[in-house]
Amino acid sequence: MNILFTLDRNYLPPLRVMLVSLLMNNPGEEFHIYLAGDGLTQEDWDGLDALCARFGAVLHPVAIDERWFDEAPTLRYYSRAMYYRLLAAQMLPESLDRILYLDPDMLVIGSLRALYDTDMGDYLYAASIHHGLVDLSTPVNRIRLSTQDAEGYFNSGMLLMNLPEIRKSVRPQDIFAYVEQNRALLVLPDQDVLNGLYGERILELDEKLYNYDARKYNGYLLASQGEADMDYVIANTRILHFCGKRKPWNKAYVGRFGVLYKHYMQLAARCMG
Amino acid sequence: MNILFTLDRNYLPPLRVMLVSLLMNNPGEEFHIYLAGDGLTQEDWDGLDALCARFGAVLHPVAIDERWFDEAPTLRYYSRAMYYRLLAAQMLPESLDRILYLDPDMLVIGSLRALYDTDMGDYLYAASIHHGLVDLSTPVNRIRLSTQDAEGYFNSGMLLMNLPEIRKSVRPQDIFAYVEQNRALLVLPDQDVLNGLYGERILELDEKLYNYDARKYNGYLLASQGEADMDYVIANTRILHFCGKRKPWNKAYVGRFGVLYKHYMQLAARCMG
Repeated sequence: MNILFTLDRNYLPPLRVMLVSLLMNNPGEEFHIYLAGDGLTQEDWDGLDALCARFGAVLHPVAIDERWFDEAPTLRYYSRAMYYRLLAAQMLPESLDRILYLDPDMLVIGSLRALYDTDMGDYLYAASIHHGLVDLSTPVNRIRLSTQDAEGYFNSGMLLMNLPEIRKSVRPQDIFAYVEQNRALLVLPDQDVLNGLYGERILELDEKLYNYDARKYNGYLLASQGEADMDYVIANTRILHFCGKRKPWNKAYVGRFGVLYKHYMQLAARCMG
Repeated sequence: MNILFTLDRNYLPPLRVMLVSLLMNNPGEEFHIYLAGDGLTQEDWDGLDALCARFGAVLHPVAIDERWFDEAPTLRYYSRAMYYRLLAAQMLPESLDRILYLDPDMLVIGSLRALYDTDMGDYLYAASIHHGLVDLSTPVNRIRLSTQDAEGYFNSGMLLMNLPEIRKSVRPQDIFAYVEQNRALLVLPDQDVLNGLYGERILELDEKLYNYDARKYNGYLLASQGEADMDYVIANTRILHFCGKRKPWNKAYVGRFGVLYKHYMQLAARCMG
């Protein structure tokens, strides 16, 4: 499986936890990890390389070409790295047909094989919408981006990419133009662009399985009429996403899945040690 | 390290989870797993053997000699297996100097090396007392067993055994006589006998590290003036003990460490699959 991560150096510790959870919970798979990282030192790269090698995975640093960004609008508070996942077709080798982008603030707790093998037809991406009882982002974002036709607002933390289709349809100049035109409206730029430009060409996948918002246990439980209890989640969910400002690597975090995340922090620390 | 488990067949599923957690969290250690199991089929033994072998551990079935129990009082509701941990000196090869007994309703989440290497002097056992703000068992048990001199009531779920000393001092006839004399008083027979006969020759170890009662997160947090928060537990605790009637393998379990236990159930199921 090909996996893509993009990050600034401050997300290196969660990336290591993410990698260990991914690799430990997918034994027997052959992983190629593509990483577009800004500001990583040689020592950082060597550490990640050794971590991947420990599980038989191969790390591929992704080179960033400065020229891609000649026409890119810069947004205050956002780094260039926000564009990387949208430039997958430019960044990745032509030989790749498919790649799974994952945010580093996630924990993989099961096999990703079924997700990776999703039949995508001519969809560009497959992703999940964070529906929810108390989640206001959907109506707010629908107004903000005028995408009333799309089914909802996709979370860009997990993006399965159909690279041949993306190479045909996703053009940097469109992305930069969209950012330029909507700069006053953009709140989560990468996600807003993805939804605004390509929302109708994204296949929806079950968020409970592949992009489970770790804050919303009670919401999922209620919405599923009691089916999605802890046994269900642990047996079926593949990707837990620690969305929002409160992160499980912080001491003050009290969320329900914090104990699992913190245990993987220990496992990752041991793998690096 | 030598590890001892004793169980009836109904505890086989938790034992597998325990084993996977023990072996996964202690890489690089050489394990000899001694198991005294009543009612296990050949298939059960083969499965456990394969599970151990997967991690490079060696499984040693412990033969039970019927004659040991000729004089053993039988207690209603308790199986013969309750005596096994007290008969370690009889059951185990003379060549062993030390063994760590562990209950199957535990999860190992870190290295046991420091525990195993505890300097025991001429103590028979090392174990933990479940002190606690709301735990009434200590005063109740102190009265019940008239062991006012001992520091408290040791939990027998984790017992580090100093086998040369045990061979000199722990005799089956004493154990059976004690049970016979106190049969009306015994509530948790193995634990009551251990405390009643040998309580003063047990070295106390920190329960937070080696026999953490998974029901008592808030108690530990308060008693430690906030130090033993979730970060502390995940970084320092080696053995979580799911004491009491509510067990984390049950669907209705809602304890704080349930998510971690249930994830290890998945890992164990994958190892057996």
